[in-house]
Amino acid sequence: MKIETKIEKFNEPLYLESGRLLEKFEIIYETYGTLNEDKSNVIIICHALSGSHHAAGRYENEPKAGWWDKFIGDGKVIDTRKYFVICSNNIGSSYGSTSPMSIDPATKKEYRLKFPVLTISDIVKAQMKLYEKLGIKNAIAVIGGSMGGMQVLCYAIEQPTFAKHYIAMATTAYTRPWVIAINKIALEAIRHDPKFKNGNYEQDDLQALGLPGLAVGRMAGLIAYLSPELFNKKFGRDYVQTDGLYELFGRFEIEKYLEYNSYSFPKFFDPLSYLYICKTINIFDAGRNKDKLEDSFLKIEGNLHLIAFSDDMLFFAKEMEEIRDIMIKIGKKEQVTFKLVDSSSGHDSFLVEVDKFEEYIRDILKEH
Amino acid sequence: MKIETKIEKFNEPLYLESGRLLEKFEIIYETYGTLNEDKSNVIIICHALSGSHHAAGRYENEPKAGWWDKFIGDGKVIDTRKYFVICSNNIGSSYGSTSPMSIDPATKKEYRLKFPVLTISDIVKAQMKLYEKLGIKNAIAVIGGSMGGMQVLCYAIEQPTFAKHYIAMATTAYTRPWVIAINKIALEAIRHDPKFKNGNYEQDDLQALGLPGLAVGRMAGLIAYLSPELFNKKFGRDYVQTDGLYELFGRFEIEKYLEYNSYSFPKFFDPLSYLYICKTINIFDAGRNKDKLEDSFLKIEGNLHLIAFSDDMLFFAKEMEEIRDIMIKIGKKEQVTFKLVDSSSGHDSFLVEVDKFEEYIRDILKEH
Repeated sequence: MKIETKIEKFNEPLYLESGRLLEKFEIIYETYGTLNEDKSNVIIICHALSGSHHAAGRYENEPKAGWWDKFIGDGKVIDTRKYFVICSNNIGSSYGSTSPMSIDPATKKEYRLKFPVLTISDIVKAQMKLYEKLGIKNAIAVIGGSMGGMQVLCYAIEQPTFAKHYIAMATTAYTRPWVIAINKIALEAIRHDPKFKNGNYEQDDLQALGLPGLAVGRMAGLIAYLSPELFNKKFGRDYVQTDGLYELFGRFEIEKYLEYNSYSFPKFFDPLSYLYICKTINIFDAGRNKDKLEDSFLKIEGNLHLIAFSDDMLFFAKEMEEIRDIMIKIGKKEQVTFKLVDSSSGHDSFLVEVDKFEEYIRDILKEH
Repeated sequence: MKIETKIEKFNEPLYLESGRLLEKFEIIYETYGTLNEDKSNVIIICHALSGSHHAAGRYENEPKAGWWDKFIGDGKVIDTRKYFVICSNNIGSSYGSTSPMSIDPATKKEYRLKFPVLTISDIVKAQMKLYEKLGIKNAIAVIGGSMGGMQVLCYAIEQPTFAKHYIAMATTAYTRPWVIAINKIALEAIRHDPKFKNGNYEQDDLQALGLPGLAVGRMAGLIAYLSPELFNKKFGRDYVQTDGLYELFGRFEIEKYLEYNSYSFPKFFDPLSYLYICKTINIFDAGRNKDKLEDSFLKIEGNLHLIAFSDDMLFFAKEMEEIRDIMIKIGKKEQVTFKLVDSSSGHDSFLVEVDKFEEYIRDILKEH
């Protein structure tokens, strides 16, 4: 599989939904496979909160492959021998696209808390600028889960003729207070971390470990991304040897898992990016500029495919059913398909249980 | 309703399941109603993680009544004109019973991290000492929800002739990794709080506000005690005016609710108590000294009544069903009853939706 990582710099302003703008911006992105001559074999992949442009393949010395490597590759569902796949790092994220820690041209210092609040629409708008620069006018499909699924819905509504298929997984048409509450733990844990200094943290202070408060916030996410049943199967009540404060308060396998996966996170993720992205998720509402969600969905011209996961504890399956029901209600029954996956990995099923929905997606893409 | 608050001091050691002991200990407790002459009208109430001995009634100038005031009082389900109700503060908790911040007789200083780890059995054992001192040999019922329900199960197994009815709500026979994970957020948030100082916090440092890290941990609990549907109904996506960092990252009603209820908590709850009680919950396993849970439940001689709540996101209804199924499996079908309440307040339903199970409990207590 041919992988390329590139950065595209835009020396033009990106006008944002908030009324503010980014004077200039950059997008780091990866592509898999080869663009055909008439540029008609494009598939767009949108990533979630902590995801990056590195969706597939494995670099030399890299311990793990890209986050959706099960899904994208030669001979896989998103077959890179056939399709030219683009995954860009969302603006706001800390993997290389313009983010709160980028230099603000106005002050020559990092934006930090002066970075504008971004919406899902803004992220999609920036991505469209990238495709324009690459001379890509259409895609076969736009695919994403979770916050990536929000982008898919936004593409379907705001870029209705861009793609033929819009495939949204494990997402919602508007973020519920349940998710806002989970994100709130991160906001409070980060805010209270003395190293955070109201966003003016010094990189030296964070050293190699990053901000511990972000780890605590991440832990809340990790719990919500999985499921009680998965925890039972994977960890049960197994106990591990430990010491210090942990010796006293015990350490079950589940605790060790959470420690490992939450404390590794701030090493490579910026706390301000985390807060800004949580905000983007919290304010997402596909019907926000409309009286009703229906009015937004009326703009859809492509085919909207919805994949929900039965044990998703973050964006519940019924939130996906609601989208399907709206499509039917507004007379777009022919343009919507819905699959409920009997999953056992919670919200993260869209990442790890690819085998349960790959046939479904193969069928959607069959004609291409 | 006659309310009395008393402290009982025990100048004798309490031998603990860990092999350690408390050289002496105290229990603060409240009673409601009047003990009859033959001491046959006793009902025991067991409280949950953050509960106290103040289960019912309202003191002068007190803003809110006791935590189960809907349930206990003159003419209520637990009718204090008829019953003598006792609710004691669990040892380990910070409302007045012996806890990590009590003075260790050996060192004349607070125990802090030298306080022994307590099990649910230890808590029940201490309570039995109280009843002994009060000359109470039997109870009509022992009732509790959540961690209080763990105590009820423990009473049923270890004090099988003490009560006629053991009524456990919204609880489990052994704590699953899901709950351990939620408690882990508190452990990490407290541990990272610079004021915690590995348990050697100075009261002056905490001042009137308590430890902020505990507030973050409490927030995780508050989310798990309620339910996504309740959040939708109660808060939706309503927005409130705010300022500072909150202005940037927004404040939805749900966030305001979480702030208010989590930051008020450390003002009156001790962080070490919180950690010790979480540990007690995490290690609870009614079958721990047995090969199988069945062997523990075989010891039950009274009637075990189980009340589960359909939208409980902390201890799922099926965990209660499991207890019922074990009772049936071991031939104790006549001794178990089960009620699934169609609830809409999540785990906290046992506190707030009393109207949905009061008839059920009235029926149980009818003969008395």
